[in-house]
Amino acid sequence: MNAARQLHLGAFMRPVSLHTGAWRYPGAYPDANFSFARLKSFALKLEAAKFDAFFMADHLAVLNMPIEALRRSHTVTSFEPFTLLSALAAVTERIGLVATASTTFDQPYHVARRFASLDHISAGRAGWNIVTTSNPDAARNFGLDEHVEHGERYARAREFFDVVTGLWDSFADDAFIRDAESGIFFDPERLHVLDHTGPELKVRGPLNIARPPQGWPVIVQAGQSEPGRQLAAETAEVVFCSPRDLSAGKALYADIKGRLAAVGRAPDSLKILPAAFVVIGDTVEEARARRLRLDSLVHYDSAIASLSIALGHDASGFDPDAPLPPIPETNDSKTGRAQVLKLAEEERLTVRQLAQRYGGYAGLAFVGTVDTVADEMAAWLEEKGSDGFNVVFPYLPQGLDDVAERLVPELQRRGLFRTDYAGQTLRDHLGLSRPKNRFFE
Amino acid sequence: MNAARQLHLGAFMRPVSLHTGAWRYPGAYPDANFSFARLKSFALKLEAAKFDAFFMADHLAVLNMPIEALRRSHTVTSFEPFTLLSALAAVTERIGLVATASTTFDQPYHVARRFASLDHISAGRAGWNIVTTSNPDAARNFGLDEHVEHGERYARAREFFDVVTGLWDSFADDAFIRDAESGIFFDPERLHVLDHTGPELKVRGPLNIARPPQGWPVIVQAGQSEPGRQLAAETAEVVFCSPRDLSAGKALYADIKGRLAAVGRAPDSLKILPAAFVVIGDTVEEARARRLRLDSLVHYDSAIASLSIALGHDASGFDPDAPLPPIPETNDSKTGRAQVLKLAEEERLTVRQLAQRYGGYAGLAFVGTVDTVADEMAAWLEEKGSDGFNVVFPYLPQGLDDVAERLVPELQRRGLFRTDYAGQTLRDHLGLSRPKNRFFE
Repeated sequence: MNAARQLHLGAFMRPVSLHTGAWRYPGAYPDANFSFARLKSFALKLEAAKFDAFFMADHLAVLNMPIEALRRSHTVTSFEPFTLLSALAAVTERIGLVATASTTFDQPYHVARRFASLDHISAGRAGWNIVTTSNPDAARNFGLDEHVEHGERYARAREFFDVVTGLWDSFADDAFIRDAESGIFFDPERLHVLDHTGPELKVRGPLNIARPPQGWPVIVQAGQSEPGRQLAAETAEVVFCSPRDLSAGKALYADIKGRLAAVGRAPDSLKILPAAFVVIGDTVEEARARRLRLDSLVHYDSAIASLSIALGHDASGFDPDAPLPPIPETNDSKTGRAQVLKLAEEERLTVRQLAQRYGGYAGLAFVGTVDTVADEMAAWLEEKGSDGFNVVFPYLPQGLDDVAERLVPELQRRGLFRTDYAGQTLRDHLGLSRPKNRFFE
Repeated sequence: MNAARQLHLGAFMRPVSLHTGAWRYPGAYPDANFSFARLKSFALKLEAAKFDAFFMADHLAVLNMPIEALRRSHTVTSFEPFTLLSALAAVTERIGLVATASTTFDQPYHVARRFASLDHISAGRAGWNIVTTSNPDAARNFGLDEHVEHGERYARAREFFDVVTGLWDSFADDAFIRDAESGIFFDPERLHVLDHTGPELKVRGPLNIARPPQGWPVIVQAGQSEPGRQLAAETAEVVFCSPRDLSAGKALYADIKGRLAAVGRAPDSLKILPAAFVVIGDTVEEARARRLRLDSLVHYDSAIASLSIALGHDASGFDPDAPLPPIPETNDSKTGRAQVLKLAEEERLTVRQLAQRYGGYAGLAFVGTVDTVADEMAAWLEEKGSDGFNVVFPYLPQGLDDVAERLVPELQRRGLFRTDYAGQTLRDHLGLSRPKNRFFE
């Protein structure tokens, strides 16, 4: 079995799940946002299942939502990614640790240092999810009244990336001699002062930390806009994306992989890992029932707004327990409306259930038995829809246990997933090479 | 024995010691700046010895020094404090974890979040060493050509403290209901939006993390200037300082404690813990010989500049192996010159040895047997020179083992130090009360 044909699996984590009703699901831990012990148990299970990475979602603000939604949301509090992943680094051995850090609201010297330090502490398991932070509420927590404009955010992100990677390359790998006899700790000839001056950033350097064990922590990118795709093609080694189905996944995969040649990169130097919400049951019907039960825990008052947005039409006057009434098509909302209608028909959902789906989690989902989900994942890999997935667990711990203890063994049986880690670093797991130092041989 | 009369002990750490020659000392770990395993072993030993806290020193730049000194310096690389202390939180149970964070080169939302997260991860063991960062090389790593002026740094620090503590108070302690049945996760009436607009900072809030277990992580301050002392009296719960002897320590102690009443604070609400370099031997002579051996590992070329600075006189032309020649007194350097002359006479040091002392570690030192060092520490406590010490280990691991396994048992035998932790949090260890939430009862 060619290792390149195997899936890569990340766990896209919030402590209680991304699904807003998850903290109410039977067996869930409503205190997981406060409990490192819970997070440690999740990381250990994911490592036992040989996941590539634990990927920590993040926001730089309490999300702006109506009070009825906000007071029902477990997302108002969570751990900060660097502190959480560093703590997890100390109690795990092999799993990768991907932290989100914003190029809009942080400083490259801080970001370079924290990732380098995490990479040293974890012996080469760090990854940086580069985000430009599109949430306008975040801007107001960092001294700005209005959000930074999209184009400017991406220009800064590109330069920020150059500065951070340049700082990581401050020392050659062989700079540290540490010869106690002669007293020479390192060779200053093997130290580079970056002295960067650009349109957005001015950073002298050098970094006051040795080059990370991985050379650079793995670069992860999540943007799907045009500048986001281009930034990914130029800089990313993992793309985290959200195509709604295999057809959209194949188009995105072909587009991003197609951009690599133009910037002189090999197709394998970038892995595309869509988010996938995975619900497992003993039967397909049981899995669907579990999902409906989970969705039913989303409060209708906070969910109906999400449906209205998806439809491009105010749904608040509809009968919640009836099927979706006919809705006039407008130019604004063609795609969204078509998706809702398709979902309503396929799953025969009421207005309430549709609202709860959009208020809970409405992205790509694999809902079925270990067999049907393994079939779907295999099809994505085979048909070049992705190189694996960032799994979103519907509820924790049960949803994670279902994947780690039931789905993963089936994927391993089929030769679609590793049975053990072959290497030590996150780059090893992902089959990514160690970047050359741009300043030193 | 009244608990209030016991010493508090912090460990002021850099991975290889603050002393620049320490990485060359017999048995030292020259790789400690790269090895989490070493740091973990230090933290576990300090916790077994019941230390109050592990205190991580920090710099935001490679220090500017002549190449001959730089290439011999182990300080060019180190761990970043948040990542290191979070990792240590996961492998320890009780010891406090104090991180340095700069108010000049960071954002209050980030700082508030990281400390709150560390406090949650460690179950109430975080402390914030507030620094304004006086190193001009740091400014150049954060987009500035010149360093921020002293007064402006302190004005920003004061406002920064108000914002960070205000963000920590975003949620009342009882805000999180987490009632799965009703679906109410928290009570928005128990959430405060800070909406701070001041001369230096504009931060909306709320913080997206629950109030820290300690209410606020313990506030540590290190400045000894006039604005530094005033900031400490207004905000600090621990003062980290460097008086050169007991007489200077008593004056500083009386000054800072004396300022507390004017701001409505009790004397016990602030602990003064000077840095103390502790070298233990079986005899006083052995301890002194160890220190001379350690100093001898500092390279003369890089040490002589430090002696010139201390003297206020160029010492580079002196015979290194002769006693200090007579030096004319100038107005600029009265105190420094007097100190060097006193040291030269007391310990009968050559120019080389004096240079190596100033190039290594020239602050307050207790050098002797466990008995003589315990006597000195007891005198400081008795005579109100301090409430304990931040111990600087001359070399690691031996210097730490000497304190943890030999000095601490003697202090415990005398009733001067705890034999076990009485509480769980760093506030418990230090005898500090939990701050009230300024927005909620």
